[in-house]
Amino acid sequence: MLDLPFLPFCAFLGGLGFVCVAFVTAWCQHWRGGFALDGSAQMFNWHPVLMVTGMVVLYGAAALVYRLPPAWRGPKFPWKVLHGALALAAFVLAVLGLVAVFRFHNDHGTPNMYSLHSWLGLATVLLFSCQWVAGFSAFLLPWAPTWLRALYKPVHVFFGSTIVMLSVASCVSGINEKLFFSLKNGTTEYKLLPAEAVFANTLGLLILLFGVLVLGALARPSWKRPDADSPDSCQVPAPLWGHAGSR
Amino acid sequence: MLDLPFLPFCAFLGGLGFVCVAFVTAWCQHWRGGFALDGSAQMFNWHPVLMVTGMVVLYGAAALVYRLPPAWRGPKFPWKVLHGALALAAFVLAVLGLVAVFRFHNDHGTPNMYSLHSWLGLATVLLFSCQWVAGFSAFLLPWAPTWLRALYKPVHVFFGSTIVMLSVASCVSGINEKLFFSLKNGTTEYKLLPAEAVFANTLGLLILLFGVLVLGALARPSWKRPDADSPDSCQVPAPLWGHAGSR
Repeated sequence: MLDLPFLPFCAFLGGLGFVCVAFVTAWCQHWRGGFALDGSAQMFNWHPVLMVTGMVVLYGAAALVYRLPPAWRGPKFPWKVLHGALALAAFVLAVLGLVAVFRFHNDHGTPNMYSLHSWLGLATVLLFSCQWVAGFSAFLLPWAPTWLRALYKPVHVFFGSTIVMLSVASCVSGINEKLFFSLKNGTTEYKLLPAEAVFANTLGLLILLFGVLVLGALARPSWKRPDADSPDSCQVPAPLWGHAGSR
Repeated sequence: MLDLPFLPFCAFLGGLGFVCVAFVTAWCQHWRGGFALDGSAQMFNWHPVLMVTGMVVLYGAAALVYRLPPAWRGPKFPWKVLHGALALAAFVLAVLGLVAVFRFHNDHGTPNMYSLHSWLGLATVLLFSCQWVAGFSAFLLPWAPTWLRALYKPVHVFFGSTIVMLSVASCVSGINEKLFFSLKNGTTEYKLLPAEAVFANTLGLLILLFGVLVLGALARPSWKRPDADSPDSCQVPAPLWGHAGSR
């Protein structure tokens, strides 16, 4: 493949992520009545915005931290903190996004957790919470033994990509579901493809493109940190590993 | 990661693929009225069955052909034919699946191509058709130059995984959409989570699991054909490459 440099790609991906957040915000603001914190449909609107921002865009940024060329040199610890902090921010937004939809459902007497979208979405957030706790315990706390890190690292990498895929599938099914719910009456029926439907369908495709590009970037061998196969990644500046720049 | 051998994994994946096909068939047969070729709702039922069988299970099998240990030795040509034939079979089923839904819509005066599911699904099948034609032209026809194969191979591999992800997202959004369409009246409402909803939601999660496992298997370095980075892959048993087992 052509030797595409990471940074221009990263700038494009950042722009695409910004467009995804702008699109989902504009959809909820312009067509779905804006935002509130009162358990109304305007409270529900936080759900798509927080999920796309957290589980797609911030999560994708967290996943790609080690692909930044500056992260290849010098101590790894600051990059691990950045990776963990971005993932934690993504997780907090996801939890707030869940609060928004559960509160909306509860205030309207609507059952929770019946649609495939809800099963998939909650499974994704639960998997993400396990991934974060396990990653923090194994790679940021100082006492995890090297053999455990070596054993767990490929599992962490595998589930990291898996969660991108599940998040994107959750978003697509959620947008599809919301449009069927919202566009019901004669003039704005979904099947008549009003402007809102075109806009939100486009949002769904942009989210998919973002997810595909994140997964492609994660898989690209030439963008991997040269010591990517090394499991140690010790974050303590111990003399044992102090002689190399590959911590 | 533990050194999991490919063949037991493959047997498990084959079993999971069979379960996905059995589940989608049982859903359409038991709850959605079975199958017909008359443009009715029973004709629509071919759509999920053919899409899951073609775009998920057969496509996944095609994608993993080169991970079979016997494909690592001897001439590559028979494995390329198998890869292309399985992909072609998947594509034919996908086209028939599209015929089923377009015919159903047209016979009922329902517009086509308005939902995000339909946009995504058609984009996936179109991308797959480009992938198949380009793969056939570059890797099975004898006259493609080596430099073109070298250039195109990573692109083919990237879009191969991308199509798995798009197919799975299409299936999940489609199952979710179909359940909202079908489970409407008081006793079987989707939100009351009747047996059909539990069954079809489970189908969606099984399809996701299948897709994640296919993507994980494709990404696993130790399961890649040792010459996976070699772009030649000449299919003509010419003496030029006849001395090596890496064709």
